[in-house]
Amino acid sequence: MLNLQTHSEHFTNPLYLESGRILEPYDIVYETYGSLNEAKDNVIVICHALTGSHHVAGTYEGDNKAGWWDGLIGQGKAVDTDRFFVICTNVIGSCFGSTGPMSPRYPYNEPYRYKFPVVTILDMVKAQRILFDRLGIHSVHAIIGGSMGGMQALAFGVIFPNFAKKIIAMATTHATQPWAIAFNKVAQEAILKDPEFKNGYYDPKEIHKNGLSGMAIGRMAGHISFLSHQSMERKFGREYKLNDGLYELFGKFQVESYLEYNSYNFTKWFDPLSYLYITKAINIYDLSRGYDSLEETLGKITAELYLVSFEKDLLFLPSEMETIVATMHAIGKDNVDYFEVESDYGHDAFLVEIDKIDQYVKDAL
Amino acid sequence: MLNLQTHSEHFTNPLYLESGRILEPYDIVYETYGSLNEAKDNVIVICHALTGSHHVAGTYEGDNKAGWWDGLIGQGKAVDTDRFFVICTNVIGSCFGSTGPMSPRYPYNEPYRYKFPVVTILDMVKAQRILFDRLGIHSVHAIIGGSMGGMQALAFGVIFPNFAKKIIAMATTHATQPWAIAFNKVAQEAILKDPEFKNGYYDPKEIHKNGLSGMAIGRMAGHISFLSHQSMERKFGREYKLNDGLYELFGKFQVESYLEYNSYNFTKWFDPLSYLYITKAINIYDLSRGYDSLEETLGKITAELYLVSFEKDLLFLPSEMETIVATMHAIGKDNVDYFEVESDYGHDAFLVEIDKIDQYVKDAL
Repeated sequence: MLNLQTHSEHFTNPLYLESGRILEPYDIVYETYGSLNEAKDNVIVICHALTGSHHVAGTYEGDNKAGWWDGLIGQGKAVDTDRFFVICTNVIGSCFGSTGPMSPRYPYNEPYRYKFPVVTILDMVKAQRILFDRLGIHSVHAIIGGSMGGMQALAFGVIFPNFAKKIIAMATTHATQPWAIAFNKVAQEAILKDPEFKNGYYDPKEIHKNGLSGMAIGRMAGHISFLSHQSMERKFGREYKLNDGLYELFGKFQVESYLEYNSYNFTKWFDPLSYLYITKAINIYDLSRGYDSLEETLGKITAELYLVSFEKDLLFLPSEMETIVATMHAIGKDNVDYFEVESDYGHDAFLVEIDKIDQYVKDAL
Repeated sequence: MLNLQTHSEHFTNPLYLESGRILEPYDIVYETYGSLNEAKDNVIVICHALTGSHHVAGTYEGDNKAGWWDGLIGQGKAVDTDRFFVICTNVIGSCFGSTGPMSPRYPYNEPYRYKFPVVTILDMVKAQRILFDRLGIHSVHAIIGGSMGGMQALAFGVIFPNFAKKIIAMATTHATQPWAIAFNKVAQEAILKDPEFKNGYYDPKEIHKNGLSGMAIGRMAGHISFLSHQSMERKFGREYKLNDGLYELFGKFQVESYLEYNSYNFTKWFDPLSYLYITKAINIYDLSRGYDSLEETLGKITAELYLVSFEKDLLFLPSEMETIVATMHAIGKDNVDYFEVESDYGHDAFLVEIDKIDQYVKDAL
């Protein structure tokens, strides 16, 4: 059975961050599915992407939208909750319950805002590891993630080599490249320059009510980076919105209408400061930081590593994953398997092309 | 010799636009290089892109920046001004002297702003043809353009089949695809939502002085679409700006610094309403509009057609050019030659990889 449960844990010990700063106290919200067996050896950790949350599968009562990877996780699915105990935590810095920039800054009752420390992918991973320790889980069967979730999965493998037996990282990279940083820059700049953002001193209730055009504009750029030429052509073509005249300056193509709808809607459920902090974490992600080389870094990984890339992913290119594979082979490591999925959905493929990764994940587990 | 001359012509007859509206009166600013021979058969027309101008070659006195295609055009260059009389006009809708949204709306002394009609690529071409007629030039040796300039070159070939002997269109398409429309959407939205844009009622002097962050944000997205993963990696890598700390929220990568510098600078020399109108013209560009099919459209072209695409162009894909070639072949036309340039500069390649197109252009002419 799915057995969806949402939990929260409060930590009073400081979390030592990569920057040298600390987070203290902090909360981690997480969701579990299935049941932990007695040997505690059936745990699978799922790591979410930029705007994802701990709600990865199933549907809340009264809601009509399932978790973001519901196609992959559940009873009888590739990540079978009849067999596995699945945990997904909301990363620190996010806005769905784990401590982030809009959480109250102890001992004050005011949100951190810019006083929130820059967090990194490693920090997100470390916080999760501390949570798992508290839950009595000291090793897991597998860690699975896509995009920023894949960065976390890889980081787990490097800094906690004995923690996971298997790591499945999809649509991700060993270090964020300038193309992806540039897209994040558009979003950051658009948020920062929106007067309604009020230099970070906005009222979140107002934003959730009215939206925030700067964040919507940035999200439009994001959506482009998640798609591909082919998926856009198939989905929208050059269709024009009904009732809009071609020669009206503000007449809209379907693709414009799609971007508007999704982007403005997005600003009603995501927090702009979290967007700044998490895109920052993605930008400065470099698995090799602190090591002499990518060879040394990847040499730490002892788990079975399964890498999945998507042919037309323009955000994190298959060639970036191939660099990981080639580097591991070059240092004589054979604990890596690589699968490039034929798909023209772009980066979003890891979320929408479930039928193409389903069997691979099942076999890997 | 180069013999750079800048001219302006005033037209009092209405320009009938594709939309059914008219532009009356209007001005066209243009630049010429070289000398018109007696037979008037040595004319080459250059068409500019979105933010280009009539200033295509040479350097103005006291200026230090040459025209935007100076590498290709001049004495002894591929487009040799010792041999050819080169004309480049500023398109209507732009902001460098030809009539655009900030031109005074006759008989008032106020700018058109939103009262300016939507213009199309065909309208731009028609206006140029009227100018050439006035100059006594009723046919030309060649028309050359890249990006939006390539759209104009193709449109010339379709609507005025006997006008040009040769057409060279680079880094362009037969109809703008949703990927490109989406990038333009980010820019349009960012401009429209900037309070300093004042819903189109801005004071241009203020914008030129202070810049316009909305247009800068849109331009950042534009820059991404002009580049490629590879050119960004080579140019910026993951270099971080000196003196910025990695864990400072506002610390910058070189790629971010590049985007900021160029985009904010851009807003001091380009007009936001022109940006809205010209991106609109690009979005609704479809060479086949008014014809039954692309086959029928391309069937009109009698000029020798030379198509140049760039391998890693992500804005207008080589496959879009290949569609033109394949369609012409399918209808039994052999007046087309195609050259895909090996380059990883992205869309910008048509401006920066001159040494790779130089010989092809020379041979074509």
